[in-house]
Amino acid sequence: MPEPIARENGKRSGSAAFGAADGRHELKRRYLDVRRATEMLAEPLSPEDQAIQSMPDASPVKWHRAHTTWFFETFLLIPRQKGYLPFDESYNYLFNSYYEAIGERHPRPARGMITRPDATEIGAYRRHVDEAMQRFIDECSADALPLVELGLNHEQQHQELLLTDIKHAFSLNPLQPVYRELRRKPAANDSAPETEWLRIPEGVYTIGHDGAGFAYDNEGPQHKTFLHEMKIANRPVSIGEYLDFVADDGYRRAEFWLSDGWETIRKGGWEAPAYWQREGALWMTYTLHGRRTLREDEPVCHVSYYEAAAYAAWAGKRLPTEAEWETAARLHSAAARPAQTAPHPRPLVPGFLQDVWEWTGSAYLPYPGFRPAKGAVGEYNGKFMVNQMVLRGRSCATPPGHDRLTYRNFFHPAARWQFSGFRLAEDG
Amino acid sequence: MPEPIARENGKRSGSAAFGAADGRHELKRRYLDVRRATEMLAEPLSPEDQAIQSMPDASPVKWHRAHTTWFFETFLLIPRQKGYLPFDESYNYLFNSYYEAIGERHPRPARGMITRPDATEIGAYRRHVDEAMQRFIDECSADALPLVELGLNHEQQHQELLLTDIKHAFSLNPLQPVYRELRRKPAANDSAPETEWLRIPEGVYTIGHDGAGFAYDNEGPQHKTFLHEMKIANRPVSIGEYLDFVADDGYRRAEFWLSDGWETIRKGGWEAPAYWQREGALWMTYTLHGRRTLREDEPVCHVSYYEAAAYAAWAGKRLPTEAEWETAARLHSAAARPAQTAPHPRPLVPGFLQDVWEWTGSAYLPYPGFRPAKGAVGEYNGKFMVNQMVLRGRSCATPPGHDRLTYRNFFHPAARWQFSGFRLAEDG
Amino acid sequence: MPEPIARENGKRSGSAAFGAADGRHELKRRYLDVRRATEMLAEPLSPEDQAIQSMPDASPVKWHRAHTTWFFETFLLIPRQKGYLPFDESYNYLFNSYYEAIGERHPRPARGMITRPDATEIGAYRRHVDEAMQRFIDECSADALPLVELGLNHEQQHQELLLTDIKHAFSLNPLQPVYRELRRKPAANDSAPETEWLRIPEGVYTIGHDGAGFAYDNEGPQHKTFLHEMKIANRPVSIGEYLDFVADDGYRRAEFWLSDGWETIRKGGWEAPAYWQREGALWMTYTLHGRRTLREDEPVCHVSYYEAAAYAAWAGKRLPTEAEWETAARLHSAAARPAQTAPHPRPLVPGFLQDVWEWTGSAYLPYPGFRPAKGAVGEYNGKFMVNQMVLRGRSCATPPGHDRLTYRNFFHPAARWQFSGFRLAEDG
Amino acid sequence: MPEPIARENGKRSGSAAFGAADGRHELKRRYLDVRRATEMLAEPLSPEDQAIQSMPDASPVKWHRAHTTWFFETFLLIPRQKGYLPFDESYNYLFNSYYEAIGERHPRPARGMITRPDATEIGAYRRHVDEAMQRFIDECSADALPLVELGLNHEQQHQELLLTDIKHAFSLNPLQPVYRELRRKPAANDSAPETEWLRIPEGVYTIGHDGAGFAYDNEGPQHKTFLHEMKIANRPVSIGEYLDFVADDGYRRAEFWLSDGWETIRKGGWEAPAYWQREGALWMTYTLHGRRTLREDEPVCHVSYYEAAAYAAWAGKRLPTEAEWETAARLHSAAARPAQTAPHPRPLVPGFLQDVWEWTGSAYLPYPGFRPAKGAVGEYNGKFMVNQMVLRGRSCATPPGHDRLTYRNFFHPAARWQFSGFRLAEDG
Repeated sequence: MPEPIARENGKRSGSAAFGAADGRHELKRRYLDVRRATEMLAEPLSPEDQAIQSMPDASPVKWHRAHTTWFFETFLLIPRQKGYLPFDESYNYLFNSYYEAIGERHPRPARGMITRPDATEIGAYRRHVDEAMQRFIDECSADALPLVELGLNHEQQHQELLLTDIKHAFSLNPLQPVYRELRRKPAANDSAPETEWLRIPEGVYTIGHDGAGFAYDNEGPQHKTFLHEMKIANRPVSIGEYLDFVADDGYRRAEFWLSDGWETIRKGGWEAPAYWQREGALWMTYTLHGRRTLREDEPVCHVSYYEAAAYAAWAGKRLPTEAEWETAARLHSAAARPAQTAPHPRPLVPGFLQDVWEWTGSAYLPYPGFRPAKGAVGEYNGKFMVNQMVLRGRSCATPPGHDRLTYRNFFHPAARWQFSGFRLAEDG
Repeated sequence: MPEPIARENGKRSGSAAFGAADGRHELKRRYLDVRRATEMLAEPLSPEDQAIQSMPDASPVKWHRAHTTWFFETFLLIPRQKGYLPFDESYNYLFNSYYEAIGERHPRPARGMITRPDATEIGAYRRHVDEAMQRFIDECSADALPLVELGLNHEQQHQELLLTDIKHAFSLNPLQPVYRELRRKPAANDSAPETEWLRIPEGVYTIGHDGAGFAYDNEGPQHKTFLHEMKIANRPVSIGEYLDFVADDGYRRAEFWLSDGWETIRKGGWEAPAYWQREGALWMTYTLHGRRTLREDEPVCHVSYYEAAAYAAWAGKRLPTEAEWETAARLHSAAARPAQTAPHPRPLVPGFLQDVWEWTGSAYLPYPGFRPAKGAVGEYNGKFMVNQMVLRGRSCATPPGHDRLTYRNFFHPAARWQFSGFRLAEDG
Repeated sequence: MPEPIARENGKRSGSAAFGAADGRHELKRRYLDVRRATEMLAEPLSPEDQAIQSMPDASPVKWHRAHTTWFFETFLLIPRQKGYLPFDESYNYLFNSYYEAIGERHPRPARGMITRPDATEIGAYRRHVDEAMQRFIDECSADALPLVELGLNHEQQHQELLLTDIKHAFSLNPLQPVYRELRRKPAANDSAPETEWLRIPEGVYTIGHDGAGFAYDNEGPQHKTFLHEMKIANRPVSIGEYLDFVADDGYRRAEFWLSDGWETIRKGGWEAPAYWQREGALWMTYTLHGRRTLREDEPVCHVSYYEAAAYAAWAGKRLPTEAEWETAARLHSAAARPAQTAPHPRPLVPGFLQDVWEWTGSAYLPYPGFRPAKGAVGEYNGKFMVNQMVLRGRSCATPPGHDRLTYRNFFHPAARWQFSGFRLAEDG
Repeated sequence: MPEPIARENGKRSGSAAFGAADGRHELKRRYLDVRRATEMLAEPLSPEDQAIQSMPDASPVKWHRAHTTWFFETFLLIPRQKGYLPFDESYNYLFNSYYEAIGERHPRPARGMITRPDATEIGAYRRHVDEAMQRFIDECSADALPLVELGLNHEQQHQELLLTDIKHAFSLNPLQPVYRELRRKPAANDSAPETEWLRIPEGVYTIGHDGAGFAYDNEGPQHKTFLHEMKIANRPVSIGEYLDFVADDGYRRAEFWLSDGWETIRKGGWEAPAYWQREGALWMTYTLHGRRTLREDEPVCHVSYYEAAAYAAWAGKRLPTEAEWETAARLHSAAARPAQTAPHPRPLVPGFLQDVWEWTGSAYLPYPGFRPAKGAVGEYNGKFMVNQMVLRGRSCATPPGHDRLTYRNFFHPAARWQFSGFRLAEDG
């Protein structure tokens, strides 16, 4: 797995019934866990590191820390907690991300211009809100609890972004800084195991979240879909396999590329995944543990949708749709489950998932019957349903517990600063 | 209907069995019809009009005339007609559109920089190729005939683009030139008839082209799809209805808009569909017949996907998917057919289609089992399958005979220089 | 000389005393001469050629023909000729170049979007105005005559721009069209003669126009200036000499370049003057007579100020200031004059001038005591007095009679689509 | 005076004869003074404040601190101090500003991407170099001493930039941070005193630096110049006067503006000098002491050359040339000197200078006889001699002792983040 950092920073939490007193107690504990995990991720970073914005798509670490806090303050404490005093009135402007209904906001590409409040003040802001939230969870009406849970999941999303954003920022520094030293000794560099092909027979399947436990609105409603017979790989494409594509002039042969993809790689001068650096005949890569050689058995990572699709065309295969992916994961999960005998840190689908997000061939669009929630929270997912492709799975940077078979991640097809790979599929 | 221009310029052709001698004869006649239709569309235009390129997405009329000719020369005459001499060696560079496999090509945004060859020389080029093609259709092996048919359909596509491109170019001229005078007296300006809602029951349906007669590769393979119960309007949204959205501050209320759409309209300063011009309290519009007032009963036209989606959100509805659209059109078509007693110029689906392309809620992606053709012709459709949305139907500028219930048109969601409208759908 | 085209199209006219009856007669003849010269320059060009705008700095030929006509209509006929009817009301918007005082105008970079009025209508516009102007010159009050003269000089400026603009446009066409065949047999390709250095002793000199005869406002007032002792070359740098700079890696050694110049050549990928094209080991150049080899004895041409300054630094010299240039030309002219015994086509300064504009080391700024004229005509020159460098002399494309020792041409330092070269100077 | 901040941070130093032992001692003291002044300017700033780059023209404070240190290391310690070990090899790449001869460098617009080394490490870097420099000044050969002096002047330039850059960065923060509290009580807000007009008679004058004491290369050689009779104001234009221009629709009337200036203010939406903010009917301004009201008696500040020139046109005057400015200051200085009886903090020309840089009407070009120094140091000034205008005087942010009557400051005409104002002149 590429960079298993987030994994060490949190604990898996069950999906409790939050209404009961026990549930509130559990939710408070979970609240503190999630909030602490964010601070632990920021801990190795200097004030300067936390202030930088390396591209419009990314945000400063300090901003992530503040914006996730703003979410609790704006949607829970201010409207629902009697007597709550906002930490600073100006923060509503500074740390609103994209909620048009909440009012004017600081322009996204200028987030790196905000040197004050500084990292220490953001720490104080977080503690202020954390204290109020502990009381709030005890006292609030039950209908507020799902919003608390949403806030925590929202923060977990930003934990992953925090890591991908700081990786991007550090990669621009000629000193190639180390975010955190790698503690484990790396294993030998072998090839990945042979791919196995999992078969899905033609038929009507049910996908999407069934509403039990937390999920984002875009994961539902659960619904039926027709799948044609197909086969899907049991693991993502490996770096070793991807190196064959690169060596076969994959980045120089237009026939494999979508038209927009071809333009993207030519304009950007792309010759390999993000963070790869040629050093003579060798490929190196920049990671959060510093610069190192590639490992052939790892899943290829930091590729765009365009690169995933081009590789698939070169390999004579295609990407799975999200419905195929979810169905395969579910079938495989069911098959695999009996073998499980003990709790383990990453139980989602043993032998199917590996720690990269996987581009699918599906555009990010609403499921049949989808309706965005009312009010500002309804802006959470629906308004991004155009021009993006769905990724499934989870990555080495995904916080534990923040993964589901129904989870729909989404990015523009040229994005590759996420831990994004892909697996292959084929018809019939 | 907005601007029924193309309709007058061609004749409906049946789908003959092209292999037989009769078929070849019929194909030659059809070849001449289609080619003549292009020249008739260009006929009202001066040499300057034909040379202009008003934006990178558009092309000069002269280029359309040459590029469609280049298609026949490049894919049929040069490789397959013994003794054929290319009209001019430099044309392969100048008039290649996007076929990477064919070699270097003139950059798209610079098509308007090519003043020579001039419109007259392009006319000679067309005649040169037409003569050779007449002989070719007689003599070629049967396996070349589908490519001739593809070339003719390709040319018909460009006939529509020719009209939308010159409309865009003329609209930038403060003189607002008339492309062709309107001959018919316009009817009274009434409201559109009340919308009826056609119901589709839940079930597995078959969509896509069955392979009988001509179709583009992207229309197949025919395949099954699951639809949930839904209702679809029997006609597109009218200008009168759209004016209500404008009047209700539709372009100033972020809550209805996709995030990318909101950015697009703010950056572009959009306050209404393309070509609408406010004149005091009145809305005027620029058309190929010149400037005129809006007609409330016409389908709204020249809107982007973003505007279609925002209107739908405002109306509490949604756009249909392409599978829903095609299924509804087929059901309606079957229901309507018995009433038909005589040939008529626009027979596709009476009472369902109206003369605008209709944005659907579906991204333009390959159908299950889709494989692009081998070689350069395989670049025709597949490489554009990302970042675009599907439109269904046809428009007032679509050449007669160039429409099918399975036809998949596609554009980027911000595009609105096509004759593009939309209809509404809703769940359950 | 590079491309002596304009030279053949006109006749030298004296500077008559326009107030008298004779003067008016002479002015009418000159009016017709100048106006006819423009039409002769446009004559080899197709309607498409005349409509194209190849970059924001350039204008379509058709626009030049219309705009020069608009000048007479706007500043003379409409305000001063009783009963004059404008040819077309819309032209004031379309063909205003930059006179803010005259009202709104069509945006400069969109001049190529105007296909109508077409080239023929512009011809009719010109004849309409020419007829009215012939009457006007007879009847107008004497104080209008200088404005007529300004209009003619304005048109002569545009004659040169017409040639440089169409050259730029044609150069983008892969067919590399010929504007006009070269009639004379080219001479042998020798080196340029050895440079002689003309000495100017230290002292106070007078430069600028003395007000006798026509001159632009920016050429005056005549005024004193102090010059240090210096030497100036008797001819511009030749192509043969410039090739040495190119061969010595001149375009790859930052030490010779102004900082803005270095950025310009790197961003633009410049490796030689404009229109030079490497063909294996050989340099070719595109000219209005078509593509041909370089001639070493010609003055180097189509270089920017940055390239002129870099060459001078490489050569251990500098560019002359405009005061030095004018003083040297005047001294040399005085010395040369006695030798003249007969009228000749290009008499300005024999043995000093050659047919390229010459970049000087002077920024384009007002002379001491300069005051722009009142009203719209005052926008003619003064408002451009920033960010540009002065060029002196004239080029092969300058119309006969449109040259003076005091003439101040000016362009941005990166411009090189003019016929621009330079000569060297040194201190002491 | 706008923001007299730098004034408090340094001490005036004489221009010693540095070769002698006494001179070296004095130079070491001056070295420490200048270096300490930089650190005192940075002292109120957090690590985040020091890391930010708010536009490509500006640099992070941390970068200023490092780059000025790099100058001593690169041009003195590394080439000339035996046994000197560079603090960090990577710094040569990171902190080179524009010296092409020194090798590759980090791209200017990405200076804000460098979070590491952090502010503390830069402090260590400074101390490392300071220690070595103290020894170096004692031991080096005498010919190195002028380079030390250049390094100190270079650092003083960056002290001023540090202030203008952080002001720009802070101004983007909606919190409008205070850099340093204003200690003195502001005086009453009166109008500026009536302007007096100083007369310069026609004649040949000498300007430029005479070579005694330190000066930049661009200030020489001293040379003669001819001036026409003119008058120059005894003080810069005040805010009260400039408000009249604003109130008279100065920013909406094209007739006063240079063409490039008009485009600049329209594109930028400029309606007043930089940092002015309309608040209802009132104008506020952002300063390093925080947000406050305008003071009418202060010189107008943070205007571009375009605004200075437009104001002058509106007032029926012009800007002085740099030769006029220097001559007037010298004449006035001579006249004023006898009145001086005691040392004072800002003695340059009492009653003439006020604390803003003043745009002149002169382009930044080499003086007659100017030759850049050999080697990398020669890149200091000469390569910027195009596209910029000269400013004379000094500002409230100029370090004491870093001003001379011959000092030539220069910026692009649209720049206005410097403390830049202007004074008027007129002919005759």
